[in-house]
Amino acid sequence: TFKEKPDPTGLVFGTVFTDNMLTIQWSLASGWEKPYIKPLENLSLHPASSALHYAIELFEGMKAYRGVDGKIRLFRPTLNMERMARSARRTTLPTFDQNELLECIRKLVEVEQEWVPYSTSASLYIRPTLIGTEPSLGVKKPTKALLYVILSPVGAYFASGSFNPISLWADPKYVRAWKGGTGDCKLGGNYGSAIYAQQEALEFGCQQVLWLYGDDHQITEVGTMNLFLYWINEDGENELATPPLDGIILPGVTRQSILDLALNWGEFKVSERYITMSDLTSALEENRVKEMFGAGTACIVCPISKILYKGKHLHIPTMENGPELTTRFLNKLSDIQVRFYGVEDWGIEEGLSKL
Amino acid sequence: TFKEKPDPTGLVFGTVFTDNMLTIQWSLASGWEKPYIKPLENLSLHPASSALHYAIELFEGMKAYRGVDGKIRLFRPTLNMERMARSARRTTLPTFDQNELLECIRKLVEVEQEWVPYSTSASLYIRPTLIGTEPSLGVKKPTKALLYVILSPVGAYFASGSFNPISLWADPKYVRAWKGGTGDCKLGGNYGSAIYAQQEALEFGCQQVLWLYGDDHQITEVGTMNLFLYWINEDGENELATPPLDGIILPGVTRQSILDLALNWGEFKVSERYITMSDLTSALEENRVKEMFGAGTACIVCPISKILYKGKHLHIPTMENGPELTTRFLNKLSDIQVRFYGVEDWGIEEGLSKL
Repeated sequence: TFKEKPDPTGLVFGTVFTDNMLTIQWSLASGWEKPYIKPLENLSLHPASSALHYAIELFEGMKAYRGVDGKIRLFRPTLNMERMARSARRTTLPTFDQNELLECIRKLVEVEQEWVPYSTSASLYIRPTLIGTEPSLGVKKPTKALLYVILSPVGAYFASGSFNPISLWADPKYVRAWKGGTGDCKLGGNYGSAIYAQQEALEFGCQQVLWLYGDDHQITEVGTMNLFLYWINEDGENELATPPLDGIILPGVTRQSILDLALNWGEFKVSERYITMSDLTSALEENRVKEMFGAGTACIVCPISKILYKGKHLHIPTMENGPELTTRFLNKLSDIQVRFYGVEDWGIEEGLSKL
Repeated sequence: TFKEKPDPTGLVFGTVFTDNMLTIQWSLASGWEKPYIKPLENLSLHPASSALHYAIELFEGMKAYRGVDGKIRLFRPTLNMERMARSARRTTLPTFDQNELLECIRKLVEVEQEWVPYSTSASLYIRPTLIGTEPSLGVKKPTKALLYVILSPVGAYFASGSFNPISLWADPKYVRAWKGGTGDCKLGGNYGSAIYAQQEALEFGCQQVLWLYGDDHQITEVGTMNLFLYWINEDGENELATPPLDGIILPGVTRQSILDLALNWGEFKVSERYITMSDLTSALEENRVKEMFGAGTACIVCPISKILYKGKHLHIPTMENGPELTTRFLNKLSDIQVRFYGVEDWGIEEGLSKL
């Protein structure tokens, strides 16, 4: 018996799962075991498992899209596999053959293909997860681990044709990531520590946290997304800017894709550079800010309209400016994902990856 | 059928568990449910559980001691309950009635009392754990949680009468905790991110990481322990120093107990203050360092004999100096824990807590 496929409109992110999951056990003694695709079921974990005590755990987020030709494709999945291997090394979990894991994921999506929404605005979210299952309490490299993948159909983030811009709470009292930490890897610990700040943002009437860093209040990320600013910079140039991968920024696949597209267009300056709150407020005073947006797998791009900082509401004129560039990235990436054209314009080798 | 009780000597920390565990379910809809003491068994967790993806999880570490009178006692357990509640708030897990939870833990230890080693140098380690079991992938405050407690008999950390001093690797490239983060709470995420550095310490021939912070290389913690320096300070005073609870230091129960004892003795200056590597190297050059040690529930105190810093081996003369003060703390705390005398000298109300 199979679960009924839900209407993808109105789905709450990550609440409905498909019928099957992929599981692969690892142990120091035997290495990786045979992968299994089997009915989604609860995991049976020793109560001392190191994932539950010491957050020896990581995850990835990627999507399968049903193209207008009916074929199902993954979007730049090798970037997720690379990042996942990097996260594994950072948290002393076992690494793996990235191509083999991708083949297993393809197979799982193939088995569950009817769960990929018949829609150009919905998709099937793929959640690879790797956890330490060492059944003892010493704080050490685990001798047992479990890699598993679950799938969840997700609807459009924005209703068709309309953006809902978000408001941000920027307060230096909570810091998402720091030099020498793990902010550039997709480890569980980066997320659990962030929810308290997110709750406080809601109490201040804002939707997400704008994460600041350092005494100069560098703008780093927004909620669980990377951040982009499209503006006229200090030198009077049109510039698309995002913070550099200096150790505290998650190297997002959407972030990379936006940089790749913009560089390929060659219409404005594209920079990985620091942006401080003082840079931003000066630019706002001088009417140099055009658009500001978050970027991630869930929403692709998410326009920002307001920042609450030091008790003052800063209005960001993203929506008044179209948002022209934000919309262009949304349409271009959607086109690539479901209309599979434009990949050749991209200027990079790998893009869509058919099942 | 009960497991055979192991010989407490030679036990590897946290590898053997008792027959039973305590579990208490929580949900946003129903609050805390009835606590159960039941046979230790694997947990059945939804693969989307928020503890496994976003490290929404915390733990505590405490011990039950069998006194020379045969009675079993917990050591300052209310401090653990307070810290646990604080950790819960920080990671948006539900808080709880601290006295009620302590009663449940007492009951569990009572059921498992034969597991408390008949030894003055071994004890029963108690591991309360609280995990988010929200079965969906949104990064948000969990609507379901599980509190559980498992028990593990542990042997003496040091063979009777002898200390094994440890060597430390001090490199600013890995940072344990930072202002605005969660280093002052006992969250899983603080530990998983530390193991990589621990591995690197081993590669450099050192046993533990000496965690540094900031451009001035402040000494913060050692491995998973708090740190103490007994020295003649810059002003020529005998001083016992440990870093202050400024947000990046775990408020250890052993740390607090050492401060309480030393203040009560009133024999030397006791300071919660910053100590930089430059403070330490100057003091070493001027022969002002007496003893340096880590402090935690597992070992009580652990002398430090060497630090590898900037490619140089710094010799710490802890062992040459007895270690007089380190030994005194070990004996005094052991006496309180298993010989239950001296609590009245302590100058604080709560100390030992009989079952």
